[in-house]
Amino acid sequence: MIPYYPYLLLNKERCLNNIQRMVLKARNNNLKFRPHFKTHQSIEVGEWFKQLGVNSCTVSSFTMAEYFASAGWSDITVAFPVSPFNSKIINKLAQSTQLNIITSSYKNLISIDSLIHNKIGIYIELDCGNARSGVNPENTREIALMVDHIKQNKFYLFKGFITHSGQTYNTNSKQEVEAIHRKSMTILSRIRTFWKESNPEIHISYGDTPSCSISNDFWGIEEIRPGNFVFYDLIQASIGSCTIDDIAIALICPVVDVYSERGEAIIHGGAVHLSKDFTNNPDQAKSFGLICPFDGKNWGSSYEGLWLKSISQEHGLIASNTNVEISILTPGQLVAILPTHSCLTVDTMGEMFLSDETSISTMRKRL
Amino acid sequence: MIPYYPYLLLNKERCLNNIQRMVLKARNNNLKFRPHFKTHQSIEVGEWFKQLGVNSCTVSSFTMAEYFASAGWSDITVAFPVSPFNSKIINKLAQSTQLNIITSSYKNLISIDSLIHNKIGIYIELDCGNARSGVNPENTREIALMVDHIKQNKFYLFKGFITHSGQTYNTNSKQEVEAIHRKSMTILSRIRTFWKESNPEIHISYGDTPSCSISNDFWGIEEIRPGNFVFYDLIQASIGSCTIDDIAIALICPVVDVYSERGEAIIHGGAVHLSKDFTNNPDQAKSFGLICPFDGKNWGSSYEGLWLKSISQEHGLIASNTNVEISILTPGQLVAILPTHSCLTVDTMGEMFLSDETSISTMRKRL
Repeated sequence: MIPYYPYLLLNKERCLNNIQRMVLKARNNNLKFRPHFKTHQSIEVGEWFKQLGVNSCTVSSFTMAEYFASAGWSDITVAFPVSPFNSKIINKLAQSTQLNIITSSYKNLISIDSLIHNKIGIYIELDCGNARSGVNPENTREIALMVDHIKQNKFYLFKGFITHSGQTYNTNSKQEVEAIHRKSMTILSRIRTFWKESNPEIHISYGDTPSCSISNDFWGIEEIRPGNFVFYDLIQASIGSCTIDDIAIALICPVVDVYSERGEAIIHGGAVHLSKDFTNNPDQAKSFGLICPFDGKNWGSSYEGLWLKSISQEHGLIASNTNVEISILTPGQLVAILPTHSCLTVDTMGEMFLSDETSISTMRKRL
Repeated sequence: MIPYYPYLLLNKERCLNNIQRMVLKARNNNLKFRPHFKTHQSIEVGEWFKQLGVNSCTVSSFTMAEYFASAGWSDITVAFPVSPFNSKIINKLAQSTQLNIITSSYKNLISIDSLIHNKIGIYIELDCGNARSGVNPENTREIALMVDHIKQNKFYLFKGFITHSGQTYNTNSKQEVEAIHRKSMTILSRIRTFWKESNPEIHISYGDTPSCSISNDFWGIEEIRPGNFVFYDLIQASIGSCTIDDIAIALICPVVDVYSERGEAIIHGGAVHLSKDFTNNPDQAKSFGLICPFDGKNWGSSYEGLWLKSISQEHGLIASNTNVEISILTPGQLVAILPTHSCLTVDTMGEMFLSDETSISTMRKRL
């Protein structure tokens, strides 16, 4: 029994296929698979990974680390630069789990000095072109300073280098993603060759969903950490990381009104459900989601010529091409919206439902 | 004691001033004040309105209506077009509260026919140029059909007409807002004059924060429903609805790294905290928020030449003008981010804190 509308529907079969595919890719490339759980934020979905032999994970916050640790995850990397405000929870978690943290510069590293009193693994984050956080790989002096500093601290275990080539999100072809991937691989294997000599135990942790979905050559690294692939979304489909049919979640929304004269319809489904990322249609019109028919259990292929033109707090406005009769929609009907960015849609919605209407809880409970 | 970072800080004094100003404006214009509670979503903030004599409210969903009804609000308008999926909760709420619903077309109205078994107030929503939901005021035949249909249903009490001139959000000057407001007032008073003759009890409910903040002539309507004014935000400041100093909430974020060579800094504060609305700087660069110094209790005037250039799930990237030294920021420091759109920031964060670190809960609890 669905308690509220709109609600988030999870296609478990697609999700399991997405997980299986990435598990196999990691295995075939001799890579440790440490999936990022920031997309599903769910202990239950985490169990589906465990059943396929995955026992390490990545999270984006220490709160999330605590949540998954409470479900028995004992090898967790928090892939967000450490801050002094995390020291208390780090010292607590480090007592019961193999906790790995990341540091994104020498300044960042010294900001936590003297605050860590329990053994943790620590990675140096490299910026291989994403221009967000991380040390410039060319900056060998800063890297040397950091390695030295880490090795002098008895609570730190130097684990190696970590990077997120998030610039792949600004592409719209597999070729562009592969070019970025090759560039990152070159930088990383150079760093690895140099530092592994004096630190044989270190390894390279890498991975964003586009690179890990599209590329097949991971020579020179040891670990991948994709996250979004578990559900995928329209951004990933536009990049070429997945097909529309790999997308495993959809927001089920009531159609509340249809305005034939304008060729537009209103759904209950807005920014508090989908968040506000968008893609651009071929004609450059913004699209906040694609609209699919829904039979009460599953969604079908998206309606040609319909798209989510704009969203406000609770309203979604569906637009149609001139050659589409908007009256295929009726007030009181349910439609499925494929999300632009599944990580944010899951974060705003919290709870998900399977086609049998059983609930899958996440870190966040929507009231 | 703040349990997590980033956290949402509420400046109670500014919030009370914003409420007081709108209460007075309504009183001076002989308007019933039915504030929209979708921005704060908080029973505690609702109490601050009660203390100023406000006893009616507007909400954006029936879940929100249930939440405020549980705190003793007994006169609630749900300002979102009704849908058959709401019938159960409508019939339940209608037993204990004066519940008003809105219908946005004849099609929408008949979609709930025979599902309502308890007395409710019902408004016809008019589209005065927002091009979202509502009947075109020119469509007198459809309006007549709806009025007739409403009056024939013994469970419906015809309350009048309601509109939201949300097109004011696409402006960036008080003059544009006032032009839109005058146009809406003209349409609404014409409708009112015509329908009040046969239905003397009806009234007009109107209001969006820009119109209600900027305009002073409300002749011809009976009720206003602004919501965002309680906290305001950077979108409202860019329109001219408020000054930067009226903004009553800020996201308190740890600075995690500073990259002097790039003139950029990283904070812990991203899309899961702020949501993803943005404004454009004078040079058309996107800005997801303004950065202010924070002394542990209050925030100061925003840093000149710094803005939130981009946000991902947990990261915020601060950019600086060439004439600003980014090193005024240090890892481990806290900064306050003024939100672009406070309604969505509060919705994603849930809980808020006062400067004495006491918690203000909302409908949604962030875990």
